[in-house]
This record gives sequence, structure tokens and C-alpha cells, in this order.
Amino acid sequence: MTAPTPSEKALVPFVSVENMMRLVHQVGIERLLVELTDVIEEDFRRWPLFDKTPRVASHSRDGVIELMPTSDGEIYAFKYVNGHPKNMGQGLQTVTAFGLLAEVSTGYPVLLTEMTLLTALRTAATSAMVARKLAPSGSTTMAMIGNGAQAEFQALAMKSVLGVSRLRLFDIDRRASEKTKRNLDGFCFEIEICNSAQSAIEGAQIITTCTADKQFATILTDNMVGSGVHINAIGGDCPGKTELHPDILRRSKTFVEYPPQTWIEGEIQQMEKDYPVTEIWQVLSGQAEGRTSSTQITLFDSVGFAIEDFSALRYVKNRIRGTNLFQEIDLIADPDEPRDLFGMLERAKS
Amino acid sequence: MTAPTPSEKALVPFVSVENMMRLVHQVGIERLLVELTDVIEEDFRRWPLFDKTPRVASHSRDGVIELMPTSDGEIYAFKYVNGHPKNMGQGLQTVTAFGLLAEVSTGYPVLLTEMTLLTALRTAATSAMVARKLAPSGSTTMAMIGNGAQAEFQALAMKSVLGVSRLRLFDIDRRASEKTKRNLDGFCFEIEICNSAQSAIEGAQIITTCTADKQFATILTDNMVGSGVHINAIGGDCPGKTELHPDILRRSKTFVEYPPQTWIEGEIQQMEKDYPVTEIWQVLSGQAEGRTSSTQITLFDSVGFAIEDFSALRYVKNRIRGTNLFQEIDLIADPDEPRDLFGMLERAKS
Repeated sequence: MTAPTPSEKALVPFVSVENMMRLVHQVGIERLLVELTDVIEEDFRRWPLFDKTPRVASHSRDGVIELMPTSDGEIYAFKYVNGHPKNMGQGLQTVTAFGLLAEVSTGYPVLLTEMTLLTALRTAATSAMVARKLAPSGSTTMAMIGNGAQAEFQALAMKSVLGVSRLRLFDIDRRASEKTKRNLDGFCFEIEICNSAQSAIEGAQIITTCTADKQFATILTDNMVGSGVHINAIGGDCPGKTELHPDILRRSKTFVEYPPQTWIEGEIQQMEKDYPVTEIWQVLSGQAEGRTSSTQITLFDSVGFAIEDFSALRYVKNRIRGTNLFQEIDLIADPDEPRDLFGMLERAKS
Repeated sequence: MTAPTPSEKALVPFVSVENMMRLVHQVGIERLLVELTDVIEEDFRRWPLFDKTPRVASHSRDGVIELMPTSDGEIYAFKYVNGHPKNMGQGLQTVTAFGLLAEVSTGYPVLLTEMTLLTALRTAATSAMVARKLAPSGSTTMAMIGNGAQAEFQALAMKSVLGVSRLRLFDIDRRASEKTKRNLDGFCFEIEICNSAQSAIEGAQIITTCTADKQFATILTDNMVGSGVHINAIGGDCPGKTELHPDILRRSKTFVEYPPQTWIEGEIQQMEKDYPVTEIWQVLSGQAEGRTSSTQITLFDSVGFAIEDFSALRYVKNRIRGTNLFQEIDLIADPDEPRDLFGMLERAKS
């Protein structure tokens, strides 16, 4: 039984996990993080163009499945992503993801790709994009509190984009810090594993918090944080999950991706509704001020937004052009005559 | 460069357009439509269990891209579907679709499949499920007004599920009717191509309207429709797109899938808000009356709902088990140690 060969439009390039890993190694992870940071910044600078539909979440006892769509009027993107804290106990990923790009003018998909790795990359690139703008100039030392799946990506993005060279690691599970240190061997960091969060942040210009507990936690208290630092808070990213004591927020100038989403998911869910936040796209496009003094604490309350996925998908689509880093999958039915779907089906019989 | 072999959970079965066509032919289209009708009815009977999130639509000048998610608490499904009326002019499909099933407990995808063909099949099966309940008993003749991509699927579902054997076709483009007649050669229908909608409905117990114009149109006027018939109105399915004169609705008992969606997209968008509608799941589960007299006009104001896609995806997942009608695609990153995503990436280098 042979079917008619599908036309070009019916075949959608698919980037598997294996091919995504090949892409990272072919480009080089540090170069890729720099390029991705620039692509995300490009899209943040044209922020008002984007359709900012809220994500659609389906919550269950064990976790959440979300669809995150956006569009710039020419390209449509969405990401499927789950969050299941208990998965780790079964040897599964807490967060897995895949994504799709489509042409707005026809609705035809033009890219399907794994996004578990790509999300880790874009999250780190977004942190680096913001830190490049807000961190004290000449930052070289980063404290990383929480050394899970994001840790190495964060470290490499801060290195390649900002020149961070010293890491001070802390995790309540020391093996996580050891894993991170081991994985970063060969990337020319000076790395110290610390016994407490307090100790980790000593001498750091950038503090990255990235823990996984799904609850209100206090990873940092106010007395621990000195003036002039940049806090990159990426672990507090859903309702009921925060990492910072509210007093730190009271002392900081806080930057967010998309306020309606961050008020629900970010650190600022703990604050009064009149707490001031600055949209990071406005800083990047010159419409708002970033850091205004060297003693100011800047805080990026990051939750992850659909436009970052859009940028990452757009980057992958351009980067795989002319390579063999994708397969074509026959996803779209494509009859010779559009009204004759049944005829296509019948002709496939013979 | 070789990557570690992904584990079972990381591989997602993918049903291509070609494999979907093979599945239809292996099962036999009429048998498949009967089985699918029963699976959809099973899910409609347990309707209150489902999460009925509204679809998320991204509108543009040329069309719409929608994500339609639902879940029964154990399985999560969503469909990506576009609607671009101008596509036909470029030789493209107006509507293309694909869908995904995932486990609610882990968020891991378990099926990815084309859904352009599958949507045509589930739409026809849903019409047949409703007609089996509401059409006059012993219905043998169906008028079909609008003979586009859905026509043959509707005809075969009504034949296999209800025993319809006579078709009276009308389309403003006679070639569409000729295409439908030709495609249905060999399926043992008695088919007549008619010169008007009026003529097509003569002697029909079931009237299916399925035209594609994206505007308020009047395919049927009140004086044309006799008592006792069942109207299967599937073309009026988005804001501003209707097919029936309001006076027909005033004389009919109207059945809908999900009222909040049908009020926006269906024929009833023309009616006053106190116009009474009956939810079809309540009829199927014995909680509401269907047809109450042989002279009553019953009207199924169909717009298509996510639960029908859920049922269709569930059916395909079961039906491909043990066959070679799918490929496995490496969609989900699966490190040996969940927190060690970066380690997986690095090990793939060697």
C-alpha cells in the first residue's frame, strides 16, 4: 500500500532531542547562548507587537499541563509544557516541553521541536539578557542557590554573555552542587561549593535562586543581601511558590516580564498591589530606566514568558536551515484539490 | 556523534497522514465510523467529568489558529487547528489539524497524530451519533447542502450508523457535487445531484448543511423545511457564520454540544438569549428528552467540541496498539538522572 507523496507544505521539520543536542554541540553551547540571548532581546524590543494571550493551564492533583501561545502577526508559536514535581521520584523529568511554529497567513505548521532542552537554554539566555542590562558592571562572581537541572545553563549563559568566571554553589542536597561542579569541569570556572546560602552569596555580584520546592520558601532573607547586587530569581514561578523574603523585595527595584502573569506566578505575589514593578522590555527598548545607582539591589522576578519560547523556536528554525539536524514528518493532510480530502484517502488505498 | 538511546517514556508514538490513511483502510472506513461514533457517545455520557476549558483562539486577518484542550482527569488532549478560508486559493487546506494525548499524572505525551483526516471522521461520527438519537426512525434519505471536504464522511457515517442509503446533493458549485458522487461510487448509495437546496431536501428525513462561506448566509429558509425532519447543521461554526434562517430555529427543538461555545459560534448566535437549547450529552445519558413527536423538527447546531477530539485521539491510541501504523519520535528529553539535563547533553557529545 503506497500513498501519494505529500507536498512540501505537508511535511513539517521536526527537531528531536537527539538533533537538538547535536545542534548545541555543532554551534557550541556558549556561542549558542550568546546568539539566543540576542534573538530574545530583539523580540523583547518589539514587545508591543506580540499577542500576549495568557497561558492555558490544566491543573491536576499531581501537576499542571500548560499551553503557551503567542504571535507577532507573522509567526505563531506555542509551547506545551508540564510541571509535575513528583515525576522525579519515578526517574522522570519534572518539566518536559515541546513547541511548534506556524505561519499566521496560512495556519500551516513550519517547525515542531523538543523544548525540554530548548527551554533550559532560553531560560538561561533570558536571565543573561536581563543581567547584562542590570547587574553591576564588571560582575564576575555569581552565587547559585539551587543546583538542579537549570544550574549549568545559567552558569554558562552568565559566563558567555557577561563574563562571569567565579561560581559559589549551594544546594540543600550537596550531591546536586557536586553534579553541577563536575558538569562544568572544562568550562574554566573557578567553583566553590558552599555550606549555606549565606556563605554562597559572599562576594557575589549576581545571586541566582533556582530551587524546585513547590511552596512558599525563604531561600534568602533580607539581612543576607548586601547593597548593589543583582538577584536573578528564577525558581519562584507558580502560585504558592516563592523563594525570597518580602523584605528583600521592599529594598529592591524589581523587573518583570509580563506583569499580569508575574503577579500570579512570581515573587511579587507576596506583595501589596501597589508594589512598583518595571517591565524589562521597556528597559531594553530604552523606554524605562534600569539600575539607577551602584548601591541599588536589582531583582529580576523571572517566571518565563511565551515570547521567550517564540524567540527560541525562531532561532532554531533559522539555525537548522541547510543542516541535517531535522527529520520531516508528514503531519498535514494535503490533497491535490483542497475540497477533495476523501479522494486523497481513497487514492491512498490502491 | 551518537546520543544515548532514549528510554521508552521519551519516545512518543506519531501517526502520520499516511499511517492515518492506512488505519482507515485496514479497519474499513464504515466500521471505523461506527466504532468512533460509539467511543464519542461513551465520552458524551460521562460529560460532567471533563474539564471544559474554552478554546484559545489567535485571530489574524487571514484566519484563526486555535488550541482546544480538554481532560477527563486521567488523559489530557489538545488539538491544534487552523481555519484559513483563503488557503483554498493557494491549493492549501482551509482547515488542518494535529493533536496530542498526554498522561495527566506525569504530563508526558503518549500520542501525537495528524488530525485533518481524524477531524473529518470525528465530525461525521458526531453527526451520526446525534442523528441516531434524533432523526425520524427508519431515515433512509439525506439531503446534503454543501458538498465540500466533509461531504463523503458525513454520507458514510449516516450510512454505517443509521442506514441512510439515498443522498440528494446540492452545491452552488456543481463540480463539488459531482466530486462527491464520484467519490461515493462503490459505496452503494443512490445519489441524485439537485439544482437547488429546495429540490435537494424533497423527501429527505435528514438535512445536512455544510457550506464553507464565512458569513451570515441563508442556505435554508423556513418555508423549505417540512415537519418531522432532522437538521444536521455543521457549517455554521464561527462568529458571523450561520446557514439557517432564524425562523427555522423558532420552529425547531435545538440540540447543542456545549452552550457557552455554541452561543458564540453556532446557528443560535442569531437568536434571543432566552431561546431554549438542549445539551446533547443530557439526551444521550437519559437526563433530557430528545425528539418528542414525529412532526417535530430536530436541529443539531454542531460547532465541534474538544471532547470529540479527545474521543478520536483515545480511539486512535487504542487502535494502533500492536500495529506498525506509527513511528516513534524522540520528543521528550530523558536524562538518566532527572536533575542532570546538562549531563545528558554533555554525554551526547562523545
